This record gives sequence, C-alpha cells and structure tokens, in this order.
Amino acid sequence: MKDHQLKPWQVLDSREVYQAPPYIRIFRQKVRVSDGRVVDDYHQVQFMDFVMVVASTADGHILMERQYKHGIGGETLVVPAGTISPGEDPLAAAQRELLEETGYAAEDWRSVGSFVTHANYGCSKAYLFTAQNARAVTVPKSGDLEDMEILLLRPEELHAAIRDGQVRSLSAAAAIALATHPDLIRCG
Amino acid sequence: MKDHQLKPWQVLDSREVYQAPPYIRIFRQKVRVSDGRVVDDYHQVQFMDFVMVVASTADGHILMERQYKHGIGGETLVVPAGTISPGEDPLAAAQRELLEETGYAAEDWRSVGSFVTHANYGCSKAYLFTAQNARAVTVPKSGDLEDMEILLLRPEELHAAIRDGQVRSLSAAAAIALATHPDLIRCG
Repeated sequence: MKDHQLKPWQVLDSREVYQAPPYIRIFRQKVRVSDGRVVDDYHQVQFMDFVMVVASTADGHILMERQYKHGIGGETLVVPAGTISPGEDPLAAAQRELLEETGYAAEDWRSVGSFVTHANYGCSKAYLFTAQNARAVTVPKSGDLEDMEILLLRPEELHAAIRDGQVRSLSAAAAIALATHPDLIRCG
Repeated sequence: MKDHQLKPWQVLDSREVYQAPPYIRIFRQKVRVSDGRVVDDYHQVQFMDFVMVVASTADGHILMERQYKHGIGGETLVVPAGTISPGEDPLAAAQRELLEETGYAAEDWRSVGSFVTHANYGCSKAYLFTAQNARAVTVPKSGDLEDMEILLLRPEELHAAIRDGQVRSLSAAAAIALATHPDLIRCG
C-alpha cells in the first residue's frame, strides 16, 4: 500500500487562540500543504485523551450505559468510558473507569487499538479495550455529571440497538462495532 | 431499556468564546446537570457535519484512500468523506464526495446511520453510507488540501489493515466496522 510517498504538511506558524485547561486548547496554524499551497487558518484542537471499554460478562452480556449526553442533547447508549488522568496508563484508566462507572472488574483485558478522533483537527486519542469475564465487585461511584442506567445486553440486543439508532455517539458505535466484528477481533 | 427517566441538562447561559466560520464555533455554557449541580464552564463545539462512504466494486473490493492527515500528523487509510455544504442533503453530499475524491459513481446507496462525533461537546454529525457496485466514471478532482492515493482493497486486506493500525482515524475505522459488520448490516 505504498505506491507513492505522501508529502507531510509543514507548520509555518502556530498560535493558541482559545484555551480552557485541561479540557480544550485551540491552535490556529499557518501550514504549507502537500502541493505547496499555504493555508493561513488551519486549526488544531486538543481535547483530553480517553478510554472506552467493551466489557462482557461470563454469560455473554455486554455492559452498556444509558445516559443523557449534552453533546447529543438527549439520551444515548454508550460504553463505559472516561478521560485519562495526566501520566496515567491507558489500560489503568480503562480499568479505573469501568470500576468507577459500573462497579465491575475483569481479569481478561485486551487492546482493540487506539485512534485519533478527528483526522483533520486531531482532537484526542481514543484507546479501546475489551474486558471479558467482567463481574460486579462494588457499587458504582463515577462522580460523573451524567445520570445513568447500567444495562446488560446480549450482543444481538446491542446490535439491534445500533441498527435502531439508539447508539447516537460515533465513538460508542465504533467501540462496539470494532470490538464485536468477527473479522476484526485480535487474538493473543 | 427505559427503567428510569434520565433528566436532561438545562442550559442557563451560553456564550460564544471562539469562532472561525464556517469551520469552528466554540460556546461556553452554564448548565444545570441532572442532579441539580450547576457547572459554569461546560463547552459545546461546532464543526461542520460530514459524510463518509464505504464504497465497494462489483467484484467486492472496497475503495479506500491513503492520505497524510494533519490531525494525525502522518499517513492513514480513510474512506471517501467530506463536509456537507449548507442546505445539501447528506446522501447528495456522499455521492458528490465519492465522485470528486475518487471519480467513482454507484447506483446502490444505503444509509448506515448518523452519529454525533463527540457525546459531550457535540462537534458534528457524521452520516454514513454504503455504495455498492461502484465503478470509475471520471477522473478524481477533489480540490482537497490532502495528497492522496486511491486503493481498492479486498475486505480481508482492509480488516487486516485495521488490526495492524493502518486506519488511525476513529471515524474511518467506525465507518468500515459498522458497514462491514455482519450483525449490523441493514436490509432494504
């Protein structure tokens, strides 16, 4: 897949135009793009990196949360997820978030990869994990702003929920589709 | 999946703190969250809505693009995609973007759903489509800033590329996983 060399862009200038630490930083850049043109106002956005967990129980149910999400302006099903603390390892963050949000712990964790959430602006890196044989070990204590209901869904119920539009977050839909796709599951 | 009523947040105040039309608008809101707490600095972000197309040829190859993407700071495989023009229908935008970026047209278009790209901040709505029996009808003329190489990959090559980390954009990975997941494909 490498027929020709793609030319990286050159950053000629970068100026911070908005910040609300630690949540958001916006930079306006002057860039020289691949064909030599110069663009004066290409933005780069920094949100916090985050983890997402597709956790399943020994009897094959997947742990989901029904939440009001403000960016959606309504209810959606999402997977357990949260931002990574400064210096925190992504896997440790995933284990912490699963426990805090749902009260579940799991032994068998696997990475499903990490992805940049906006190919043009950057925004954040999302780390996806699966957690198998998850079991309730304590009561949830997320401290999150969102009210939520925890659900245990069979894969066919969850896939029907995606087809029906009940998973309105692209990240959550991506996590489920990537983690349960028979041709995408990683071994070992 | 409706055991209890989730309480929507209330927007008490909303102030625009940055804009770079038509690409970015940032609002800082004062919100009353579900449990009654008031948060002074919850942000809402507006990027442009966009379409993504998972297009396949009659012989089962999927049309991909290898591009340098500035938000990633390097190369990635992505699906044909682009922003929706003001007033444009998402399907029309998908057909236009596929033609402009790849020179391909297709007869058999289906929606794979629409999703909000950031559940907390909003950011944009992504409309996913599949386009079957795609065929080259003209030369690409995207006008995009990115240099690109068009690839025709068999599904097993594409899935291997995702497992290998060559699809670094969460949106592109989501599009492929959602469009090719055997339990998520919609009929009719």
